[in-house]
Amino acid sequence: MRFDTIWRDARIATLSPHRQGLGEITGAVAEKDGRIAFVGAEAELPVGWEAADTIKLDGRWITPGLIDCHTHIVYGGDRAHEFGLRLKGASYEEIARAGGGIVSTVKATRAASETELVAQALPRLDALLREGVTTIEIKSGYGLDLVSETKMLRTARHLGRERKVSVVTSFLGAHALPPEAHDKDSFIAKVCAMIPQLKQAGLVDAVDGFCEGIAFSPEQIALVFDAAKASGLPVKLHADQLSNLHGAALAARYDALSADHLEYTDETGVAAMAQAGTVAVLLPGAFYMLREKQLPPVDVIRRHRVPIAIATDCNPGTSPMTSLLLTMNMAATLFRLTVDECIAGVTREAARALGKLSDIGTIETGKSCDLAIWDIERPAELVYRLGFNPLHKRVWQGR
Amino acid sequence: MRFDTIWRDARIATLSPHRQGLGEITGAVAEKDGRIAFVGAEAELPVGWEAADTIKLDGRWITPGLIDCHTHIVYGGDRAHEFGLRLKGASYEEIARAGGGIVSTVKATRAASETELVAQALPRLDALLREGVTTIEIKSGYGLDLVSETKMLRTARHLGRERKVSVVTSFLGAHALPPEAHDKDSFIAKVCAMIPQLKQAGLVDAVDGFCEGIAFSPEQIALVFDAAKASGLPVKLHADQLSNLHGAALAARYDALSADHLEYTDETGVAAMAQAGTVAVLLPGAFYMLREKQLPPVDVIRRHRVPIAIATDCNPGTSPMTSLLLTMNMAATLFRLTVDECIAGVTREAARALGKLSDIGTIETGKSCDLAIWDIERPAELVYRLGFNPLHKRVWQGR
Ligand SMILES: [Zn+2]
Ligand SMILES: [Zn+2]
Repeated sequence: MRFDTIWRDARIATLSPHRQGLGEITGAVAEKDGRIAFVGAEAELPVGWEAADTIKLDGRWITPGLIDCHTHIVYGGDRAHEFGLRLKGASYEEIARAGGGIVSTVKATRAASETELVAQALPRLDALLREGVTTIEIKSGYGLDLVSETKMLRTARHLGRERKVSVVTSFLGAHALPPEAHDKDSFIAKVCAMIPQLKQAGLVDAVDGFCEGIAFSPEQIALVFDAAKASGLPVKLHADQLSNLHGAALAARYDALSADHLEYTDETGVAAMAQAGTVAVLLPGAFYMLREKQLPPVDVIRRHRVPIAIATDCNPGTSPMTSLLLTMNMAATLFRLTVDECIAGVTREAARALGKLSDIGTIETGKSCDLAIWDIERPAELVYRLGFNPLHKRVWQGR
Repeated sequence: MRFDTIWRDARIATLSPHRQGLGEITGAVAEKDGRIAFVGAEAELPVGWEAADTIKLDGRWITPGLIDCHTHIVYGGDRAHEFGLRLKGASYEEIARAGGGIVSTVKATRAASETELVAQALPRLDALLREGVTTIEIKSGYGLDLVSETKMLRTARHLGRERKVSVVTSFLGAHALPPEAHDKDSFIAKVCAMIPQLKQAGLVDAVDGFCEGIAFSPEQIALVFDAAKASGLPVKLHADQLSNLHGAALAARYDALSADHLEYTDETGVAAMAQAGTVAVLLPGAFYMLREKQLPPVDVIRRHRVPIAIATDCNPGTSPMTSLLLTMNMAATLFRLTVDECIAGVTREAARALGKLSDIGTIETGKSCDLAIWDIERPAELVYRLGFNPLHKRVWQGR
């Protein structure tokens, strides 16, 4: 057997579901044509193997490349000024008068060209890549008309050509009512009409929505999900973040890939997710920034064996965060996830939340050779530290 | 006038106390022999000036170099394993049996050589420098005997020779009772005896203590402070973090440079600090990691016009944090400090907390030319973002 590259003398958190915990082994990973061709103890290497490149890791740790499965990383402008005003005690009305809120992001996003949106998103994307991210989900939802949503999704695909990273897109037309619209029902009808067109253009991998009093009702979201299903697209949902509208159960009814946030989800909702195989995506960055008190029902989620992923929720309003390492610390510190849950949450379970578990998320033969190599003594260090990046090397599709 | 270097076309947050807010101006900073020789609008440059080096900043922002005025960055080992056990619900007894707690750090620190301690601290120091830190305070306190405390303080000085950074040391012998000791009073007597010897060796810039039920009483700390005063050293104190032992008032009675933590400080303590000119050093990282509920009395501190600094408290047990940018976000998000308070807290007020305001902390002529140059549109971005480093360049003593 001839490999392209072999990484030897490594400690490997394979995340294999066939092993305990993080599936830890000592040995080597080898790659051919961008796929994992071998993972195991060095003694198990096939007789007569050779490799074009041999990299000795001196006992460093390898994990699967990290996956950020929930981001709004493409947007125009920023909301730093609004953040500052809020700290000075400005009311929501004063912030709206000062041009703040999601409407300001919609205006800035509509005003920017695709080239400008790429330029603004790249530093954020690069911050994630520097911490070992090899796959990122990117949502639309600040365009809110066909032209601008198309531009956002094209920007997302464009980012995937600018860097060595896999991009998965979600159409989030049902994010907020745009400033020119006055009726939620008629806006939802427009969103439903966009779905087949965006699908046709090859821009959409899944359809997302925001089910909340300040956004759209379960009935309105159901219409969007019906349109998604008619176009053959999987769905996911911003569910039960600020109140319990039974969004998790709604998502499960449509066999959603994931239901995200979940602070107010009840046990019925969690049970429905378990039944449907819907992943719970927890977003501690938004919880932290909003200083929320209501914790997601982690124990109930565990009891029903619903898989848990975690993500940055990178967005300009409620989580201007570009660090999955910090996300892991917040999931541990604020939500009391264990070290193993945090690491699985940004690898195996994040892959599951994107419907990509057969291709990424674990270190198993046949999968894409997406790796993060770390200067650490034990995996817990990835979760324990705050504002420290021990990445040694990132490998995407073997390179 | 001939400058060594001039930085032109900049927006400058001077932090000058003679200006409003962050003391923002548009113009240039120039340096000669490592000191700031000019700061102001370009029109105010002296007639006939020239410079060996001219750097155009294209409108980038300059702030004073950042100052981390409270760290325990020198230590042996780490506590990631203990962090993981705690998330699994291990009790304090189980963690102690597994070799955790501060005693484990004392053992690892004692076992390490100065060379090893330098090697372990450098990646942490480098993480801070990458975000624009130009001065760092480093405490001892994991040695707890003369040989090991000496080694820690020598390591701190050594770090200052390894990197372009100013190091300020604090002797924190009164940090915890070492494992071999059984009586706090006799240990405090030993600590007091170490002070003149460490002072003599040129290793100590200030004397610190930990006044708390789990550490030392106000009476014991007073003995340490008396010894510090006898050696002509300024003092500072870990005060009122977990309970109100009136540590802030004690610190003020000794004209302390700073009193740090302060979650449980009452108004009498704050008033005493105001009277003494003692700086309030707030440490949101430890508050966050310990999931504390009791907020420091920020409004009372403001009302009494006590200066507020903020710091990482970088330490292996309660704040394994190596980011002053994240510290600023936590001070804003958790303690509701304003953007201006956060930025002043890691520059001007941090300098004041170290007794170094005449030399660093603002961009004013005559001071050390310690600068941080940022790729941002407005200072609020430094506080608003999570896990993003917009540093363009760090300048220490003009280089
Ligand atoms: Zn979101
Ligand atoms: Zn401390």
